[in-house]
Amino acid sequence: MLRLTQTKTISPLRAAIGSIRTMASVPETQKGVIFYENGGKLEYKDIPVPVPKPNEILINVKYSGVCHTDLHAWKGDWPLATKLPLVGGHEGAGVVVGMGSNVKGWKIGDLAGIKWLNGSCMSCELCEQGFESNCAHADLSGYTHDGSFQQYATADAVQAAQIPKGTDLAEVSPILCAGVTVYKALKSANLKAGDWVAISGAAGGLGSLAVQYAKAMGYRVLGIDGGADKGKLVKELGGEVFIDFTKSKDMVADIQEATNGGPHGVINVSVSEGAINASTQYVRPTGTVVLVGLPAGAVIKSEVFSHVVKSINIKGSYVGNRADTREAIDFFVNGKVKSPIHVVGLSELPSVYELMEQGKILGRYVVDTSK
Amino acid sequence: MLRLTQTKTISPLRAAIGSIRTMASVPETQKGVIFYENGGKLEYKDIPVPVPKPNEILINVKYSGVCHTDLHAWKGDWPLATKLPLVGGHEGAGVVVGMGSNVKGWKIGDLAGIKWLNGSCMSCELCEQGFESNCAHADLSGYTHDGSFQQYATADAVQAAQIPKGTDLAEVSPILCAGVTVYKALKSANLKAGDWVAISGAAGGLGSLAVQYAKAMGYRVLGIDGGADKGKLVKELGGEVFIDFTKSKDMVADIQEATNGGPHGVINVSVSEGAINASTQYVRPTGTVVLVGLPAGAVIKSEVFSHVVKSINIKGSYVGNRADTREAIDFFVNGKVKSPIHVVGLSELPSVYELMEQGKILGRYVVDTSK
Amino acid sequence: MLRLTQTKTISPLRAAIGSIRTMASVPETQKGVIFYENGGKLEYKDIPVPVPKPNEILINVKYSGVCHTDLHAWKGDWPLATKLPLVGGHEGAGVVVGMGSNVKGWKIGDLAGIKWLNGSCMSCELCEQGFESNCAHADLSGYTHDGSFQQYATADAVQAAQIPKGTDLAEVSPILCAGVTVYKALKSANLKAGDWVAISGAAGGLGSLAVQYAKAMGYRVLGIDGGADKGKLVKELGGEVFIDFTKSKDMVADIQEATNGGPHGVINVSVSEGAINASTQYVRPTGTVVLVGLPAGAVIKSEVFSHVVKSINIKGSYVGNRADTREAIDFFVNGKVKSPIHVVGLSELPSVYELMEQGKILGRYVVDTSK
Amino acid sequence: MLRLTQTKTISPLRAAIGSIRTMASVPETQKGVIFYENGGKLEYKDIPVPVPKPNEILINVKYSGVCHTDLHAWKGDWPLATKLPLVGGHEGAGVVVGMGSNVKGWKIGDLAGIKWLNGSCMSCELCEQGFESNCAHADLSGYTHDGSFQQYATADAVQAAQIPKGTDLAEVSPILCAGVTVYKALKSANLKAGDWVAISGAAGGLGSLAVQYAKAMGYRVLGIDGGADKGKLVKELGGEVFIDFTKSKDMVADIQEATNGGPHGVINVSVSEGAINASTQYVRPTGTVVLVGLPAGAVIKSEVFSHVVKSINIKGSYVGNRADTREAIDFFVNGKVKSPIHVVGLSELPSVYELMEQGKILGRYVVDTSK
Repeated sequence: MLRLTQTKTISPLRAAIGSIRTMASVPETQKGVIFYENGGKLEYKDIPVPVPKPNEILINVKYSGVCHTDLHAWKGDWPLATKLPLVGGHEGAGVVVGMGSNVKGWKIGDLAGIKWLNGSCMSCELCEQGFESNCAHADLSGYTHDGSFQQYATADAVQAAQIPKGTDLAEVSPILCAGVTVYKALKSANLKAGDWVAISGAAGGLGSLAVQYAKAMGYRVLGIDGGADKGKLVKELGGEVFIDFTKSKDMVADIQEATNGGPHGVINVSVSEGAINASTQYVRPTGTVVLVGLPAGAVIKSEVFSHVVKSINIKGSYVGNRADTREAIDFFVNGKVKSPIHVVGLSELPSVYELMEQGKILGRYVVDTSK
Repeated sequence: MLRLTQTKTISPLRAAIGSIRTMASVPETQKGVIFYENGGKLEYKDIPVPVPKPNEILINVKYSGVCHTDLHAWKGDWPLATKLPLVGGHEGAGVVVGMGSNVKGWKIGDLAGIKWLNGSCMSCELCEQGFESNCAHADLSGYTHDGSFQQYATADAVQAAQIPKGTDLAEVSPILCAGVTVYKALKSANLKAGDWVAISGAAGGLGSLAVQYAKAMGYRVLGIDGGADKGKLVKELGGEVFIDFTKSKDMVADIQEATNGGPHGVINVSVSEGAINASTQYVRPTGTVVLVGLPAGAVIKSEVFSHVVKSINIKGSYVGNRADTREAIDFFVNGKVKSPIHVVGLSELPSVYELMEQGKILGRYVVDTSK
Repeated sequence: MLRLTQTKTISPLRAAIGSIRTMASVPETQKGVIFYENGGKLEYKDIPVPVPKPNEILINVKYSGVCHTDLHAWKGDWPLATKLPLVGGHEGAGVVVGMGSNVKGWKIGDLAGIKWLNGSCMSCELCEQGFESNCAHADLSGYTHDGSFQQYATADAVQAAQIPKGTDLAEVSPILCAGVTVYKALKSANLKAGDWVAISGAAGGLGSLAVQYAKAMGYRVLGIDGGADKGKLVKELGGEVFIDFTKSKDMVADIQEATNGGPHGVINVSVSEGAINASTQYVRPTGTVVLVGLPAGAVIKSEVFSHVVKSINIKGSYVGNRADTREAIDFFVNGKVKSPIHVVGLSELPSVYELMEQGKILGRYVVDTSK
Repeated sequence: MLRLTQTKTISPLRAAIGSIRTMASVPETQKGVIFYENGGKLEYKDIPVPVPKPNEILINVKYSGVCHTDLHAWKGDWPLATKLPLVGGHEGAGVVVGMGSNVKGWKIGDLAGIKWLNGSCMSCELCEQGFESNCAHADLSGYTHDGSFQQYATADAVQAAQIPKGTDLAEVSPILCAGVTVYKALKSANLKAGDWVAISGAAGGLGSLAVQYAKAMGYRVLGIDGGADKGKLVKELGGEVFIDFTKSKDMVADIQEATNGGPHGVINVSVSEGAINASTQYVRPTGTVVLVGLPAGAVIKSEVFSHVVKSINIKGSYVGNRADTREAIDFFVNGKVKSPIHVVGLSELPSVYELMEQGKILGRYVVDTSK
């Protein structure tokens, strides 16, 4: 069906980086959303199709999730500078249409995903131990590397997510960042099946995925959020107990009673500093509080005396590595985790950002790059 | 509903607790230091020899270390109430001279140690997993159970430390609390041989033991303390690098440079809140900051963004369990750890407390109960 | 050298062991099944009610599971001698009706379980680390300590299983040994949720529990057994794949294909030496083969070259400790695991043994001590 | 000093694989030892210098260790086919003189090492988890990829060992395979500092490195080998106890007595099947027997009853991954491990093989590629 052109070197640029294999049908230009300065205009326009380096695959992105981080990247309000101009996006799912000469393990036509971690050095002490996200030379999709808000994007072949044939590309896209992030956070809590885990912010985008992963991992889930509707959702997703922070008069006491002494682990996907600090109080002795969300300028505080006497842990968890990604996708593919999405055209991205800034987003928006 | 029959108790005291085996030489009274209210007079006087319960051994305490916690117990300035009147002390080393009817595994004449954790329920979820120190029903020597500042003291047979024959009882006594505490903290840092560990407060009582244990465990030790003499001591004990906080202009940078990116673990035996907070900055990505000391009212603060992006842990460690105790003693017995002590008579305990309050203690004081 | 004074024992029996608290309704004699020599007559008769030691509780056993081990104990065909005469049984569930003076954490009327491990020294290096089953001084119910085939039995208070109020005592009884054993074996395989586990002998008594625990722990289950009925049962219990050894022409290939490279863990509850050896071949690289069953005289063989190149583990798992027991019961109480049983009177025990010897037992027999 | 030529494409072949950076001084041909069929003539002759692929570095090999595996590769007596013709060798240490266009993290002039694992797919489930040696697509130096018995060799940039400046290249070469292998085996035993480890074959090439690594990791070492000279060596290297199998009348009893119950771990570098099987008997309850050596056709046997009741592990360990390599080299560089070598010219390799076949090798032979 597809015509493949092997080792067809096209232009001086391409030859300089080695032979690449691409489908003949790959165009020279494409649609994408690009901005030229942080906070500047988000332009939906024709831009060149990128050329894969020897180690990269070229993905025809079909869908891409939109994450809060994309908003931060556009605004440039994090302590780490973005590349400019920048095409954002780091939850892209699509089809492999080309690859560099040095790529192993991929075929044209395979399904592939673009993650936050586009590539890492693979040689430093952190990469060697599987802490690739923590690599000092991490290359970040939609941040330091043009991302998935375009029809064709490149990704390091080793880091790109392998997506099984037949997977729904729109639904899997939020798994590539949101799913991996909460799954890794749950692994970081170091729980065993039957243990209690509290999800703070359980009904939100990350939270609703966290509840499902936690349930699939055999944990007992206590969800924390505000409002009866949120409670209903948390229970439908597999939560056993719901604590409504708009109603509880003593969160710490209520949570400890419901879990017979406090949850063994807490996943803080809520970005409230107050909620994070409370979690150091209600966590079970010897339990683990996991930090995942990145509220700007927030500081976690824990009282040393009880931190020691209860021997608790406070642990940061930052996206996930290749194995975490494969596993998070497996749970989705095996039907353990559903991903509720709203699909809109890529051209509508600027209005999605607007809704996001206004805090009006419920669930996950996914952009269709063909529109 | 159910009628209970309490089996009659027959002889005045001993029958009530079952038959006990004791050496005929055990007297009815003994010398000890007791106080009747927190902060009250420390009286060196004749008090009754305690009678072991069925599960307890009776130890003829020969020596006992004096720990900062003893001062807190006397003053009653911790959030947990002491028993009153109270005999303090929780680093006692002596000889078994009696035992309850239910004791297994001990013989009259064995060497035994009294630890901070005198006994625990052994049945709760925490005890079952070896977190006995964190048991809600922990019985604490020199705090909720009369301790080792007397010639004869009781200890739960299961928790009492087993000390090999031939061990120097004066020198081993600080191992029973200070040694176990730093050893456990090092284990909690979850390091492997060859990793860097920073000891904050390296030349103090706990710190100087920590340096030795760390070295014996195969770690590379960076000691932090103030002053050239302290630096000399740290290096003699096995420290590879010394950072003098009175001289360093940028502690975080200096520590990270000396350890090629930050220590994999940090043991905070210093009780300075500032030092603790700095440790969250200089620790290596994915590394562990261990809290051990208990500065009154202190709060640890960590910036969420870098906590997540560096994926660090902050972990409380609280004394140690039976296995930790056995292992800590083994290192001492095998000559890997020296315990520098000053021996004075038990009757001089009040003046040791005075020196302690004035911050004039260097190294560990040990009281000889025969004087 | 030292003169010891054994404190006089005063009343004939009870004083010797200290004061005990018992319900007035506890009789002096009871019904039980006892034998006087290995392989000798199993007598259902009146025997004295045992008296708890200071550390023991007295349990009015309501129901007791019957395990293959009971048959071995009676026959005396294991390399470890039994006490004689002996009351067998180590899966007893009942009500606390008395306790020694030193017992903490139990009340008259609590529900309690008798496990294979009646008590251990709690002081040796193995006990200290939670390997209580491996203690050289382990006291075994129905083997070295009179067990649960009687109406009243004693158990060490620390080791006795805590059973939540309202639990069905007949159904929970097999959990106390069979359930704990397979649950611990699954933990020993060191898997994570989403991993494949093969259960060899999946439709048998242990196997059918193992399938359910594995499912509840989030693992993907491949069951191995012979016959279509067995396959149906395995799938009903939560198995995802069934391999029928009576039909498969290449077990190793079939299992590896079904699990995309071999199961990450294998639980050998089947006692076939051939099945055990095959598991070393089909296990996934870096996976773990767990040995649980105790086929008399069996030897496991593994080819060194592929053991190394595939870096597999072969691990023995032996019942479970206090924490494992609590957790295994929790899964049952929370409805994650069903225990299919046949209840008969205690007086019928000899005919249950007969059926067992003839290999005619399907599922678990439980004896009702009131009949 | 060195003239670098960047992106100078030289021949059709080189252009096909992308631009490469090489030093101008790299010749077209070099000296190497090559054979054309398994067991065929080992020819020391002029062969072409290999060209690095985009992901590879080109190393000017200065020294290479000679390992038993090289003999197996030449003979072709393992179940895995070698490439032909073949240049053997997988313990090469040298200087980076060129690299493919896609290489990150290396500079011309860096010191680099060639390991057994030349490269792996980095994308499969095993690679993702750091089990790169177990990758089904592993590319093996001196086996499926021309190795270090030549002056210039290529290695995957991610897998090549990073050797600190100033390291003695002759002495470090055996660390690259023998050192990494025993270090990883010790890690696989899952011991903690203070535990006993037995090294079976302690005075041999692998064993003498194992004793030193074990000591540096804080373990107590019991060495097993035959003869007083061997005992002397083991003690000099840091062994605490030596068991001479030519003198012991009951190895199991002697080893258990010396270690107070058996070693917590056993490293079987000896390839004797009898020695391996004995280790399953003397290992401490809950301990780990590690298999490392690859005796042709050997089978390990373990009696199921005691395997279960003692809850032991038998674990295969196969070379090491990138992190293990870095760590093993660190111990060497920090002076914790010495590597006793005999240096001969590369042209003398055939006679080294001869000595090896005759079992006359003591310590490690290293070839100097300049001779």
